[in-house]
Amino acid sequence: MELESFIRDVQDFPKKGVSYKDITPLLLDPKAMQLAVGMFIDNLPHTNIDKVVGIESRGFFFATLLADKLNAGFIPVRKPGKLPHRTHSENYELEYGSDTLEIHEDAIKKGEKILLHDDVLATGGTAAATCKLIEKCGGEIVQCNFLVELGFLKGADRISKYDVSSLIKYS
Amino acid sequence: MELESFIRDVQDFPKKGVSYKDITPLLLDPKAMQLAVGMFIDNLPHTNIDKVVGIESRGFFFATLLADKLNAGFIPVRKPGKLPHRTHSENYELEYGSDTLEIHEDAIKKGEKILLHDDVLATGGTAAATCKLIEKCGGEIVQCNFLVELGFLKGADRISKYDVSSLIKYS
Repeated sequence: MELESFIRDVQDFPKKGVSYKDITPLLLDPKAMQLAVGMFIDNLPHTNIDKVVGIESRGFFFATLLADKLNAGFIPVRKPGKLPHRTHSENYELEYGSDTLEIHEDAIKKGEKILLHDDVLATGGTAAATCKLIEKCGGEIVQCNFLVELGFLKGADRISKYDVSSLIKYS
Repeated sequence: MELESFIRDVQDFPKKGVSYKDITPLLLDPKAMQLAVGMFIDNLPHTNIDKVVGIESRGFFFATLLADKLNAGFIPVRKPGKLPHRTHSENYELEYGSDTLEIHEDAIKKGEKILLHDDVLATGGTAAATCKLIEKCGGEIVQCNFLVELGFLKGADRISKYDVSSLIKYS
């Protein structure tokens, strides 16, 4: 079974000229989901993971599954105004303008080992901002992993001081 | 272990006078997560489930876990413009104004048995809209389940023709 065969190309989404990698066909197939989770686990360093951070909102799909398999807690990183308790915030640049991500201040204890997960690594802006949020909380990033990496956007360069792992890479 | 002890009340969120039920402390504790998943499974009718539908975005937390345990596929129901392929849409009323939810047209095959999951059942507007989306695709709803039910908002009345199950109920 090839994971890549479950990724659907959607032309001109979200805007003209973009070929979007749609992961929803993979989510529909429980065997493909289980294969992906197993590959994520196999690619982890042999370190205990305390918490898995998933980035809103497609990062949530696999982050809770990884937390479950690793017997770790799950932390959602969200857009502004979504998390109800005290948060750390981090701004990051977009192609046009900027955006912000937030994490609950008390989600991570100092020194905890953290796995960051998102569905797609594109330019790396959200991943880099999330790394900063995790470190503001005192967490130590064990790995940043992704289902899909758009290698041509060079996002891995933005988080090159961490261990980066992707299951499907488009170069 | 009492699941309710992991729910944090946040006063005046998202607006003054509202006491918000914050589920993130529960997500931080893998034992509490596993307990909740086990209870969800125990409360299901003895019917095969083909797909689990999770509502954006806090419904995604447990929906993928339930899909994994049930060896079922996972379908995200999302806000407009987020799903890249052809969708069915459903409008629903809010306290002020209205909103829309979407599902991929090809996510469900006719006659498939569907579990609908969301984190909180409040007024039932999003759940009722999602039921309509599932039925537009030809799916048969086996159960609608929720981590938290705000019983005083009477959302269960809106989806009373389905089996409704909640793990934590505030009356």
